[in-house]
Amino acid sequence: MGIRKDGREPHELRAVRFTRDFTELALGSVLVEMGRTRVLCTASVEERVPPWLRGKGRGWVTAEYSMLPGSSAERVEREATRGRPSGRTQEIQRLIGRSLRSVTDLETMGEVQVTVDCDVLQADGGTRTASICGGYVALHDACARLVQRGTLAAHPLTDLCAGVSVGVVDALPCLDLDYSEDVRAHVDMNVVMTGEGRFVEVQGTAEGLPFSRSELDDMLNLAEDGIARIFEVQRATLAEPPPPRRR
Amino acid sequence: MGIRKDGREPHELRAVRFTRDFTELALGSVLVEMGRTRVLCTASVEERVPPWLRGKGRGWVTAEYSMLPGSSAERVEREATRGRPSGRTQEIQRLIGRSLRSVTDLETMGEVQVTVDCDVLQADGGTRTASICGGYVALHDACARLVQRGTLAAHPLTDLCAGVSVGVVDALPCLDLDYSEDVRAHVDMNVVMTGEGRFVEVQGTAEGLPFSRSELDDMLNLAEDGIARIFEVQRATLAEPPPPRRR
Amino acid sequence: MGIRKDGREPHELRAVRFTRDFTELALGSVLVEMGRTRVLCTASVEERVPPWLRGKGRGWVTAEYSMLPGSSAERVEREATRGRPSGRTQEIQRLIGRSLRSVTDLETMGEVQVTVDCDVLQADGGTRTASICGGYVALHDACARLVQRGTLAAHPLTDLCAGVSVGVVDALPCLDLDYSEDVRAHVDMNVVMTGEGRFVEVQGTAEGLPFSRSELDDMLNLAEDGIARIFEVQRATLAEPPPPRRR
Amino acid sequence: MGIRKDGREPHELRAVRFTRDFTELALGSVLVEMGRTRVLCTASVEERVPPWLRGKGRGWVTAEYSMLPGSSAERVEREATRGRPSGRTQEIQRLIGRSLRSVTDLETMGEVQVTVDCDVLQADGGTRTASICGGYVALHDACARLVQRGTLAAHPLTDLCAGVSVGVVDALPCLDLDYSEDVRAHVDMNVVMTGEGRFVEVQGTAEGLPFSRSELDDMLNLAEDGIARIFEVQRATLAEPPPPRRR
Amino acid sequence: MGIRKDGREPHELRAVRFTRDFTELALGSVLVEMGRTRVLCTASVEERVPPWLRGKGRGWVTAEYSMLPGSSAERVEREATRGRPSGRTQEIQRLIGRSLRSVTDLETMGEVQVTVDCDVLQADGGTRTASICGGYVALHDACARLVQRGTLAAHPLTDLCAGVSVGVVDALPCLDLDYSEDVRAHVDMNVVMTGEGRFVEVQGTAEGLPFSRSELDDMLNLAEDGIARIFEVQRATLAEPPPPRRR
Amino acid sequence: MGIRKDGREPHELRAVRFTRDFTELALGSVLVEMGRTRVLCTASVEERVPPWLRGKGRGWVTAEYSMLPGSSAERVEREATRGRPSGRTQEIQRLIGRSLRSVTDLETMGEVQVTVDCDVLQADGGTRTASICGGYVALHDACARLVQRGTLAAHPLTDLCAGVSVGVVDALPCLDLDYSEDVRAHVDMNVVMTGEGRFVEVQGTAEGLPFSRSELDDMLNLAEDGIARIFEVQRATLAEPPPPRRR
Repeated sequence: MGIRKDGREPHELRAVRFTRDFTELALGSVLVEMGRTRVLCTASVEERVPPWLRGKGRGWVTAEYSMLPGSSAERVEREATRGRPSGRTQEIQRLIGRSLRSVTDLETMGEVQVTVDCDVLQADGGTRTASICGGYVALHDACARLVQRGTLAAHPLTDLCAGVSVGVVDALPCLDLDYSEDVRAHVDMNVVMTGEGRFVEVQGTAEGLPFSRSELDDMLNLAEDGIARIFEVQRATLAEPPPPRRR
Repeated sequence: MGIRKDGREPHELRAVRFTRDFTELALGSVLVEMGRTRVLCTASVEERVPPWLRGKGRGWVTAEYSMLPGSSAERVEREATRGRPSGRTQEIQRLIGRSLRSVTDLETMGEVQVTVDCDVLQADGGTRTASICGGYVALHDACARLVQRGTLAAHPLTDLCAGVSVGVVDALPCLDLDYSEDVRAHVDMNVVMTGEGRFVEVQGTAEGLPFSRSELDDMLNLAEDGIARIFEVQRATLAEPPPPRRR
Repeated sequence: MGIRKDGREPHELRAVRFTRDFTELALGSVLVEMGRTRVLCTASVEERVPPWLRGKGRGWVTAEYSMLPGSSAERVEREATRGRPSGRTQEIQRLIGRSLRSVTDLETMGEVQVTVDCDVLQADGGTRTASICGGYVALHDACARLVQRGTLAAHPLTDLCAGVSVGVVDALPCLDLDYSEDVRAHVDMNVVMTGEGRFVEVQGTAEGLPFSRSELDDMLNLAEDGIARIFEVQRATLAEPPPPRRR
Repeated sequence: MGIRKDGREPHELRAVRFTRDFTELALGSVLVEMGRTRVLCTASVEERVPPWLRGKGRGWVTAEYSMLPGSSAERVEREATRGRPSGRTQEIQRLIGRSLRSVTDLETMGEVQVTVDCDVLQADGGTRTASICGGYVALHDACARLVQRGTLAAHPLTDLCAGVSVGVVDALPCLDLDYSEDVRAHVDMNVVMTGEGRFVEVQGTAEGLPFSRSELDDMLNLAEDGIARIFEVQRATLAEPPPPRRR
Repeated sequence: MGIRKDGREPHELRAVRFTRDFTELALGSVLVEMGRTRVLCTASVEERVPPWLRGKGRGWVTAEYSMLPGSSAERVEREATRGRPSGRTQEIQRLIGRSLRSVTDLETMGEVQVTVDCDVLQADGGTRTASICGGYVALHDACARLVQRGTLAAHPLTDLCAGVSVGVVDALPCLDLDYSEDVRAHVDMNVVMTGEGRFVEVQGTAEGLPFSRSELDDMLNLAEDGIARIFEVQRATLAEPPPPRRR
Repeated sequence: MGIRKDGREPHELRAVRFTRDFTELALGSVLVEMGRTRVLCTASVEERVPPWLRGKGRGWVTAEYSMLPGSSAERVEREATRGRPSGRTQEIQRLIGRSLRSVTDLETMGEVQVTVDCDVLQADGGTRTASICGGYVALHDACARLVQRGTLAAHPLTDLCAGVSVGVVDALPCLDLDYSEDVRAHVDMNVVMTGEGRFVEVQGTAEGLPFSRSELDDMLNLAEDGIARIFEVQRATLAEPPPPRRR
């Protein structure tokens, strides 16, 4: 047995699972699970792009993120009630959108926008990186169906994309923190990579004690290995094309 | 075979199903399905009531409602982005809250508030009445656990509560409209009742042609019968108490 | 003398009065009084329709509702101060608009929009149904003037429209509740009908004790009779066309 | 006949009229008319003051202002719809409040707040100064009733207060501009004074051509005379105390 | 030595200084100082006008005003945090914009908009009139550069423009109040004039005791003299054209 | 001469300068310049903490950030006008606040809050890291004065703190990008460190092409060196205590 509360070794991921077509109306719909963290990622398509992109013949991919009020033991206030997405939500939305766009050939899409919505059904740490992993699969399915329909000439995703969290918990660098670890970590870092092993995002924040260069290097190593394993699951999931969807 | 597009008779309900503890962190969590309509209903508890109720020793039950952006074939804009719940959302939230409070003995709860969140994962008509049916079960489970924990002295729900939609489609009064029927109906009516057969809400609206008194009477009859059948499913679902939940 | 606090029988309306051209700048302007409830209804015309209707050659009728701060013994906060119309206000606005549109032939209007503003000068119960009754007359006068001016080819109102509140007060079904009755009623119901005796809206809500089918039937009977009497006053009011208005 | 479009001489006021108790629920309620301009002014009382005044034993008088949508030939958008009072509305509200406070002994009121709401039923120029004139009378009546009730020990108004507009139209300084004159004026000035002949506010703005010192002096003279005549009407109106109001 | 706290005579201005090109990216950029009051005024140019002006071939000048949070001994809350400019800010913005437009020939500008931003770095009384004085110089420099560039055919400013505050402090009419005087003044008045000695704005407000006609006349005299001296400094500042700016 | 447009070597900083007491009313006030980037950082003190910290005896440090509209060649819209800080602004504010808190002993401060406002007067790249560098000095001066006054028992800053941007421009890792480099960079990274050489924040984002592990390591090396040189300037700046400030 491992040395973390749930028995994992420091370099171990939680169970990763993707359920395709979890719902049936959005063009792509994936439930991603990283342990107890569960996020419903849907990809919806509009044949029009934001105002600042119109007339340029390019597509757009954007993301939105939200936690359902019942996703945590303590209820999360609904942002529509407060009147605006919080700073945290906006940071996360921008992160997911940038990550997915980094592996999308927007030039070939024509004026089509895909919105990837990541709604957290249950939150147990790592929801933003799980959203990237699941959002990627939902986006992939939606694009595959746009190719089936003839809306897109070619599938615009150029590489895999996934993210994972790492941190330093009780002086030990660990991969894929759950909520109870996240709360105790003195560093919290999110790493997003592409299938060919390059970085899209590296965001490390000291919560309390700042971190040394060697801790930083350890965390980057853990993230590189963990993301490689998520890529395997994504590849297996996407081995078969999605069944065609009638309009 | 029946005379509606999906083969149902005019007085027939779609398949009704309640999945308890669909998620594990909220105190009550129920996925309700009415055909393809699916709503995740969670009940979250706070040991404090709204400002205008403080110091009165009474509890409160309130509800919030939202459609996930990917719940429809055409993406639904997120209300946090627009800055406020729409008029439609507010009407629905008020309806669900009033309905659930009509069968709750708030006096015996002490200063405890339960918020029932109804998030529509997939929308195929009748989402507001499905939310009442599922929200009731989630609220029932949350209260049962509050009794198990000793937070509540007695279970505060005094009766069953459920709702259903009825309408007149192509001159034929029909029960439990799906989305394709809802769009064509010239009357749309939502009825909410208690287990002992009394009305909590009757909301009928002509979409286009106004309706006669005899159409109104037919719709009320259909609703009474349909709700009686939903009560049977609720009773079966709640036959066993929910497993205790650790804090 | 009757059995209600103000001496009325259960089936009796309060005095209904319409004062046409209460103000002189809006194209239609009616002060409606139901007892002490007083609502100023104005109908303003724009020769452009909302964005989603443009280019279709159809008209639109919409309504807005507000209570003046001094309309009640306890001051009503101004909604501009709070930054948005309340859920109650939005429900009422949607109700008034749907009711008036149900008797308007939008197809014949061309791209003309009429906005009916209902501002409550004094609130003593039944303000939303009084707004429908008075808003109908203001809309009728505005349309008559648009025909006089040649903006409309024919008067687009196809029937009368009026509403009334009913309720169960101390176990007795009563018509047209004033504020003191409304507060004590255990059911509150608003009914809107057209001149030919069909229903546009039926909205009944239990405040506390749910209601039986027979109470519901009694309330519907009272409403049908009461609205028939309001139609007589509307017909008498509109017997003469409004004097032409210079632009 | 005079030399202005409506036959008035340059120094002539329009007909000024105050109708007390125009509505019956607010503690003070006055319809003020200056020609076709009509403003409903109500004064509502709360026995609590704004947070920054609490515990100081002083009272407060504040004002709010709004134009009803139907008050003009061209519909005025409702500010609750836009989400906030406009800059113009806020300027006017602040002006009315400062003016009324300048003649109120807040020290003697105890922690009582009076809110004077000025809702323009019909706008034909001079609505802000009419609001001050009518708001003064409504505030006076409300305070008189608070003295009758024993809420206030003494009437807190220490002097009269009224305002009027002046301007330069076609090079001619004129008193009390109506809307058609206001639009053509190259200077627009509002003056507020107390009964003993001192100035509370002087607000002159060039619309187009700046104005000379001698034009400024002429306008101040016209305003002093006009306000003196409004004081006579206020004194006559307030000669009798208002009838007591039951709570 | 004078009779005011800082040694000035009643008719004396504080030291007035304009620093041109205080920053280098905006087309006009002026730091204006009136004693310890310091306002950074920048003029930015867009070759498009607001929607209601489009297609008319005319230009527009508008102004915005803000106090930096650290500009006062007590921190000033940021208006973006509160969600909207305060009533005071909107009044000031409208005042600055009207003043600058009163000396601008908008007709000759073509569809060009200049926005003058006045950000108060340090507030010691008279920030709104300092903003007008400094905003004028920034606008003048920006327009001069637009002429150098050929965007404008001729310089559109037709006259000088400046403002100053006056007040009655301890019964003594005084020019150019600093913050400590402003707090004690029983009248606060802002006067804006053009180079040829005409008035653009006169805004006097009693804070507490209303003011007599003779106090009003004294204040107007002080303002006329003070503004004449500011014009001298503006003329000296603008004697040389600004160095050309590369795009 | 170097190989960058402005002649710098890849590892070279722009000129760094701190001007203390740039304004005189805020307790700490520093103008920081990194080349042409200029940010006014003020530190304001309140003897009360946010609601969620009350009664815990601890202090708080928070930060706000804004770009003045005239800080760029193209005018930056004011966030108060749009009604809320943008996602970018909120990210930056959170980054500055976290960074400064990482070197502050909040426990020893008592219930005192310091707000560090960073207002960008001129933007030429690196405004968020310049804000951290300058905000640190302003916070240091404000705390020193709080110790002088006796409000704080001991100076709460436990270490230096500074940040810098790094990036990859035309395949070359470079330190301290100016705006023209930032626009062309395919990676943009902000690094914040403490005086003892540990990391507070590492935020790297691919703009376009993702980056390799070796590019990441190069950028981290550049940042470590650059920040060490900024620390020297901060130490020199803070060698003398600030002159005492009267309240």
